[in-house]
Amino acid sequence: MTITGQSLIGSSYSTSNGTVFQAFDPTLGKEIGPNFHTADQRDVEHACDLAQAAFDTYREISPEARARFLEQIGQCILDIGDELIVRAMAESGLPRARLEGERGRTIAQLNLFAAVLREGSWHDARIDPAMPERLPLPRVDLRLRNIAIGPIAVFGASNFPLAFSVAGGDTAAALAAGCPVVVKAHPAHPGTSELVGRAIQQAVAASKLPEGVFSLLTGIGNTLGTMLVQNARIQAVGFTGSRQGGVALMKVAAARLQPIPVYAEMSSINPIYLLPAALAARAETIAKAFVDSATMGAGQFCTNPGLVLGLAGADFEHFAQLAGKEITQRSAATMLTAGIHAAYRHGVAALAEQADVKLLGQGVAAEGYQATPTLFSTSAKAFLSNPILSAEVFGPVSLMIACENEAELLQVTEHLEGQLTATLQMDEGDKALARRLLPRLERKVGRILANNFPTGVEVSHAMVHGGPFPATSDSRSTSVGSAAIYRFLRPVSYQNLAQDLLPAALQDANPLRIWQRRDGQLGR
Amino acid sequence: MTITGQSLIGSSYSTSNGTVFQAFDPTLGKEIGPNFHTADQRDVEHACDLAQAAFDTYREISPEARARFLEQIGQCILDIGDELIVRAMAESGLPRARLEGERGRTIAQLNLFAAVLREGSWHDARIDPAMPERLPLPRVDLRLRNIAIGPIAVFGASNFPLAFSVAGGDTAAALAAGCPVVVKAHPAHPGTSELVGRAIQQAVAASKLPEGVFSLLTGIGNTLGTMLVQNARIQAVGFTGSRQGGVALMKVAAARLQPIPVYAEMSSINPIYLLPAALAARAETIAKAFVDSATMGAGQFCTNPGLVLGLAGADFEHFAQLAGKEITQRSAATMLTAGIHAAYRHGVAALAEQADVKLLGQGVAAEGYQATPTLFSTSAKAFLSNPILSAEVFGPVSLMIACENEAELLQVTEHLEGQLTATLQMDEGDKALARRLLPRLERKVGRILANNFPTGVEVSHAMVHGGPFPATSDSRSTSVGSAAIYRFLRPVSYQNLAQDLLPAALQDANPLRIWQRRDGQLGR
Repeated sequence: MTITGQSLIGSSYSTSNGTVFQAFDPTLGKEIGPNFHTADQRDVEHACDLAQAAFDTYREISPEARARFLEQIGQCILDIGDELIVRAMAESGLPRARLEGERGRTIAQLNLFAAVLREGSWHDARIDPAMPERLPLPRVDLRLRNIAIGPIAVFGASNFPLAFSVAGGDTAAALAAGCPVVVKAHPAHPGTSELVGRAIQQAVAASKLPEGVFSLLTGIGNTLGTMLVQNARIQAVGFTGSRQGGVALMKVAAARLQPIPVYAEMSSINPIYLLPAALAARAETIAKAFVDSATMGAGQFCTNPGLVLGLAGADFEHFAQLAGKEITQRSAATMLTAGIHAAYRHGVAALAEQADVKLLGQGVAAEGYQATPTLFSTSAKAFLSNPILSAEVFGPVSLMIACENEAELLQVTEHLEGQLTATLQMDEGDKALARRLLPRLERKVGRILANNFPTGVEVSHAMVHGGPFPATSDSRSTSVGSAAIYRFLRPVSYQNLAQDLLPAALQDANPLRIWQRRDGQLGR
Repeated sequence: MTITGQSLIGSSYSTSNGTVFQAFDPTLGKEIGPNFHTADQRDVEHACDLAQAAFDTYREISPEARARFLEQIGQCILDIGDELIVRAMAESGLPRARLEGERGRTIAQLNLFAAVLREGSWHDARIDPAMPERLPLPRVDLRLRNIAIGPIAVFGASNFPLAFSVAGGDTAAALAAGCPVVVKAHPAHPGTSELVGRAIQQAVAASKLPEGVFSLLTGIGNTLGTMLVQNARIQAVGFTGSRQGGVALMKVAAARLQPIPVYAEMSSINPIYLLPAALAARAETIAKAFVDSATMGAGQFCTNPGLVLGLAGADFEHFAQLAGKEITQRSAATMLTAGIHAAYRHGVAALAEQADVKLLGQGVAAEGYQATPTLFSTSAKAFLSNPILSAEVFGPVSLMIACENEAELLQVTEHLEGQLTATLQMDEGDKALARRLLPRLERKVGRILANNFPTGVEVSHAMVHGGPFPATSDSRSTSVGSAAIYRFLRPVSYQNLAQDLLPAALQDANPLRIWQRRDGQLGR
């Protein structure tokens, strides 16, 4: 396919003459064609109007038809062929195997939501039958189902050009819920975005859906995204990116005449707890696995382990030496963008110059836009008193914290901001301490792991990729896994409506054969 | 019981010397003792600190223990005896039968949540078992459950001194979810609030729970509520009241360092659609039932029908005459507060002086703080062009709108802001028009009724008392019914944790005997 450099507005291309930009190949260190044209106000309005026009139709096609549409998107993405992988490699600096895996993940994610649609619990169908004889007042027939919330603005992430971008988790969940989607492409991979956007456009046409079900806006600068979130048609926002960017969108959404929900997945340093028995028994294994996790994908994961906590002493010192030595053997890797690379260098330099921060090891020296893996250590007292040490530095850098005793370990835990994950490296002898940590971690994070590492986010039913602010803007939800569909649904009650006016999900005959809750009890 | 006039901080009383105020009897038109002392900053911090201290314990007591605690609260409220009814009558001007009914509703609401806790779906327990043989990567064991979100600030409503106040729907849902609650009492019924607060205090003690599970702050002015929402311990807000008040709290919550969810139920004019066949067949019956609904409780319901829509013509004129005549026969009734009464008089006067607004009828003239039931009519064109006609006037006033044709009826529908309810008065011959209206109404409201009236909000599983802004601040939820518990929960994932570290809801042995979703399929 030829990449045109224009936004996709429903079934058409924009003809905008907005600010021109190009993609950038961080491996070669140079811009790559073609020219991309930033979408303008007219594009935003057109895309949002089409989304609104498509909404009532799209949200009420059968769940089976919506499931097939999601599967069709996956097929159309696959049909792009190797061109997609090659373009994504050039725009992201990520290796082929990673991007092929990510394409598989993206398609599996669409298929998971197709399965969710067929299973039917997402309707939350509830029926409280009438009780005409009830005293003192009769009870009326009352039924509840979830409906789609409205057109959704999705902001593609830089670090997953496929799985968290144009056809990524936010888009898949919103489309599954019955919401039209207007994507703001990430300017770090505009060509990849256009290719995937056209695959969705093809799936919309092949599924005979209204064109407004999907649009893709391309562009640089903050104005485009702000205009999109301000558009009155938009009813919720999905975002994965920086804390600064997410908080800015939260403010825009809250300042609207009608405020709307924002699901922003932002900032996390994902503490790893080295509990004493595990540390005594398995320091070497854990050190190696930790460095694997911390340097994977040049550390460019939301779940990258940026903090390592333990009790001061010989075992902790030993681990620090092992991990420091391990990291010096790791190669530098190309980062996604020049901006991310600059922020990483700045963040590492800032950590290095803080009082009581010691360098434990640094990997092979970097060239071009590569990041050098780096490991620091500090004391719990320094961490508690210096907010710079709590800030996320996106990339392959971690900070080890030696706590004087268990009380200080718990104190550091209470001091943490909200996180996506927390990980316990633990053995049988650590269970008492784990039991003291668990309630504190439940309050702070979305996912608690034992003897795994947080990188590697399974796309399944029981995943929570979320957590208290600033990990996300809304801890009541997840941005990965099947529960993500609930972000884009809202309940509606029907009182005393005739069977032939009720939606299929609420009819007594249960034509969709879904779970219905009658008088509070599930059945089908 | 002697009413002390002080806030309840955990198991103690405040000793605040804050601004003194008294309750007001709107029927007698005079203040009633004792003096109440507005809680101060120290009270807010103390209550929130106790709530935080109670949180980890309270959220993890067994669902059965929490269910019994809710039932115990109901018993303690009943044990106050007639003193509660007498005090609530004096502070609200509401009649005995209404308040006795409301007490029953309050207790039934607590018992409904007790049943929800025992049924167990609220855990949303999900288990994705490990697949060690999966290729290319093994799958880890992953489990998800909902946990309580944290201490909640609840603002009592003026119009339901029992069912939407200290032990009302928000408190019941939050306590059920496992959240400690700090209530800001409504200053219109401070004595009623203290009596109910002490009943909850007794139930906390009788259930041997940490004292911080419940506190009650009393006071006048906006400072107290603002301080409460700003307190870093508070993790969500429940509010029922005016649009102005709700929007102010939304802004405070969004401006926090850590923004938090606000569930504000605010403003709705609850349109009634008179469809042609029903109007032709049953004008007299519908007119009488409509006036019953519009004047019930002096019109002081969130679901009061403030708007009546139909197609211009002889039948609609006839209905307007019938309803206008009916309303002239209705008595004035005492309103809840002097402020609500003043706002009602002002709102009715403002409507009366708008261009193209005609008075159809007015009830028996008012005395003291009574409201005169009033019915106006206007044209669709006036309604579409004048925002004053869309604003809620809290009290027994409604506005009839004659639409020239179906297109204009649909246009007025699209023009409406978000509403709690919309009602179709319809017969078999109206189904085609109903089918055109339904998708539009689903986008606008939380509950759609046929041939009922919106006043009378059933407390059950399928109720949605919510809707798009400005009906509420968050259309993804309900403030009445069992689904309200989900407002105060958030999901947490557990990856690869040993069985004896997992919460009971996620253990393979399923000791709670609840529904668990394994690999996406429900079972137990």
